[in-house]
Amino acid sequence: MTSFLLTNIGSLVTNDPTHGGLLGELHDAALVIDGANVAWVGSRRDAPAADGALDLGGRAVIPGFVDSHSHLVFAGDRSEEFAARMTGTPYSAGGIRTTVAATREATDEQLTANVSRLVTEMRRQGTTTVEIKSGYGLTVADEARDLEIAGQFTDETTYLGAHVVPSEYADDPAGYVELVTGPMLDAAAKHSKWIDVFVERGAFDADQGRTILRAGIARGLQPRVHANQLGEGPGVQLACEVGAASADHCTYLTDADVDALASAGVVAGLLPAIEFSTRSPYPNARRLLDAGVTVALATDCNPGSGYSSSMPFCIALAVREMHMTPAEALWSATAGGAASLRRPHRGHLTPGSRADLAVLDAPSHLHLSYRPAVPLITQTFIAGRPV
Amino acid sequence: MTSFLLTNIGSLVTNDPTHGGLLGELHDAALVIDGANVAWVGSRRDAPAADGALDLGGRAVIPGFVDSHSHLVFAGDRSEEFAARMTGTPYSAGGIRTTVAATREATDEQLTANVSRLVTEMRRQGTTTVEIKSGYGLTVADEARDLEIAGQFTDETTYLGAHVVPSEYADDPAGYVELVTGPMLDAAAKHSKWIDVFVERGAFDADQGRTILRAGIARGLQPRVHANQLGEGPGVQLACEVGAASADHCTYLTDADVDALASAGVVAGLLPAIEFSTRSPYPNARRLLDAGVTVALATDCNPGSGYSSSMPFCIALAVREMHMTPAEALWSATAGGAASLRRPHRGHLTPGSRADLAVLDAPSHLHLSYRPAVPLITQTFIAGRPV
Ligand SMILES: [Zn+2]
Ligand SMILES: [Zn+2]
Repeated sequence: MTSFLLTNIGSLVTNDPTHGGLLGELHDAALVIDGANVAWVGSRRDAPAADGALDLGGRAVIPGFVDSHSHLVFAGDRSEEFAARMTGTPYSAGGIRTTVAATREATDEQLTANVSRLVTEMRRQGTTTVEIKSGYGLTVADEARDLEIAGQFTDETTYLGAHVVPSEYADDPAGYVELVTGPMLDAAAKHSKWIDVFVERGAFDADQGRTILRAGIARGLQPRVHANQLGEGPGVQLACEVGAASADHCTYLTDADVDALASAGVVAGLLPAIEFSTRSPYPNARRLLDAGVTVALATDCNPGSGYSSSMPFCIALAVREMHMTPAEALWSATAGGAASLRRPHRGHLTPGSRADLAVLDAPSHLHLSYRPAVPLITQTFIAGRPV
Repeated sequence: MTSFLLTNIGSLVTNDPTHGGLLGELHDAALVIDGANVAWVGSRRDAPAADGALDLGGRAVIPGFVDSHSHLVFAGDRSEEFAARMTGTPYSAGGIRTTVAATREATDEQLTANVSRLVTEMRRQGTTTVEIKSGYGLTVADEARDLEIAGQFTDETTYLGAHVVPSEYADDPAGYVELVTGPMLDAAAKHSKWIDVFVERGAFDADQGRTILRAGIARGLQPRVHANQLGEGPGVQLACEVGAASADHCTYLTDADVDALASAGVVAGLLPAIEFSTRSPYPNARRLLDAGVTVALATDCNPGSGYSSSMPFCIALAVREMHMTPAEALWSATAGGAASLRRPHRGHLTPGSRADLAVLDAPSHLHLSYRPAVPLITQTFIAGRPV
């Protein structure tokens, strides 16, 4: 183990409220990395000696982004569908099936290269943890393959066999639920930490969702839910009922949904890049925050409804479109994501937390929303090492 | 002069309609650079021999972005003002004066370093021509100094002494117009191609604007106007009257304004990153396009109303928020900007045009809006050379 000092940090976001404010921001600060973890944070003047040091010239340092929702294992390009949607052709749920067909046809090497490219792109933008879902395989072999590929890049793999009913089961959705909870789960479980289901009109209903999530829980997977994206529905209540870590989308919520999230302690995952790329109304973040719900921001990076890999963009949208404060948005993109993934040692920069951080070419984190879409991340560290 | 071949271009946007469509897009294409200019474009199979070659592996190539509106010569940080605005504090025009004070206090070296940093950042995002305005000096010496610094980075310098009436002339706006059209113009003219005025309630009225623009024209400067940003007003009509190259902002237009732009051939410069960062309504781009007005997209990068340097972000906003097609948005960010700056040999990739181009880590230009805020530009060439 060698220790390493980052010093002359203009603004250091720790997400440790003992340093004051939501973000526990320290000015003229320093941070010591020991092996994979943070060993010390504080004022530059008080920094202890270390084996190596890097002067950051007044730049800001933030916890690395925790992107708690993405769909990176796919093949094919849907830019033409995006252009059609933006210029007036209505969105069709057949879109997911387009990607399923292309993904099944792709070789392992093609899928792996695509995930690698996107994970590299995310890291360059400051993301240090990314959850990756399956859901474009939808056969026993394809779901297992896609999760195994995802697992080469992250510990946060999510089995989403219940993304949509594939065409070959269009007349037998019950049969597909049996597949998802039977042989497909058998094949997927050893490659997955999480199980997820898309509860929405046109995808799966509450009873199907419950069956699927309970089957996964029985196999040791932890539940998370795609909920209430396109309209009010039972997804959020189901997430609360089964003790899911998060209910993601949360675009259309009743008062009872908001209350349930707050009392169950389920994280609301907001994915505003999807509303941007589908020209949909944004979720009401203030209503959730004011009710005491923990909010995570994530990209939902996927080839259909929104293909941005940029967590800074989600922050800029959260501030502009969802009236989150810059501090709330950054917290939700880091500590909120870590809560969504049940990773208490990520999303913070405090002694003992994993040394996952991003260096900004800016004097403070405010520039993430003040300078939308500008690539401000100059360096990303994961588990203490530059990537 | 040596020639250089770019080959295996998946999609090449030429903006030459003889190749079909608005963008004159060629697939499986190649392009030959000779010295500073484009010598040849066409199908890869037909490419002539050259002294050197680069295989782009199917990536897309587009004309470099022409950012026809920016304010890069300044000092100070206004991120706190931005955060206050986003969280409920109303926008105050005093903001420009904050930057004026900081800019006057800055050394030449500080201002030059800031412009250099921002121009480098723009080039990394594919911008190959940027117009830079003064307007944070507002004394004879400061305006001349700021334009001289801008001129180290671009030929497209704009004298904007008439940005706002500075505090010391608050009781004597007529005296300030005399300064702007007299000694300040004398000092600024040799460093400027353009003259600009902010015609808006709280800044300059039509008579003042006319006086200022005509004084500049008499000294050989070409006019452009900040017009109709915050409400309907006389800016657009004045731009048409004096034969301005562009009227920028155009957020609030009457039918007569739209007609005037179309018949005078004045380019409408739309700056959607400003509406994003001020949470304002976006201009109606479709109304302008449908009336036959030439539209340019630009960043208006400045520390107050919007500090994004990203032309791809402007394209994504144009598509999402202003209902421009992806092709219209890209054209406006390249050829439209070139029209706004009266640079017929830029914004296109045809034999004889300057070899200003950007390489995308994507198979087609559609990814600029399909993948918002993702840094897709892998290489930028200006006048035939990688930068
Ligand atoms: Zn999703
Ligand atoms: Zn401006």
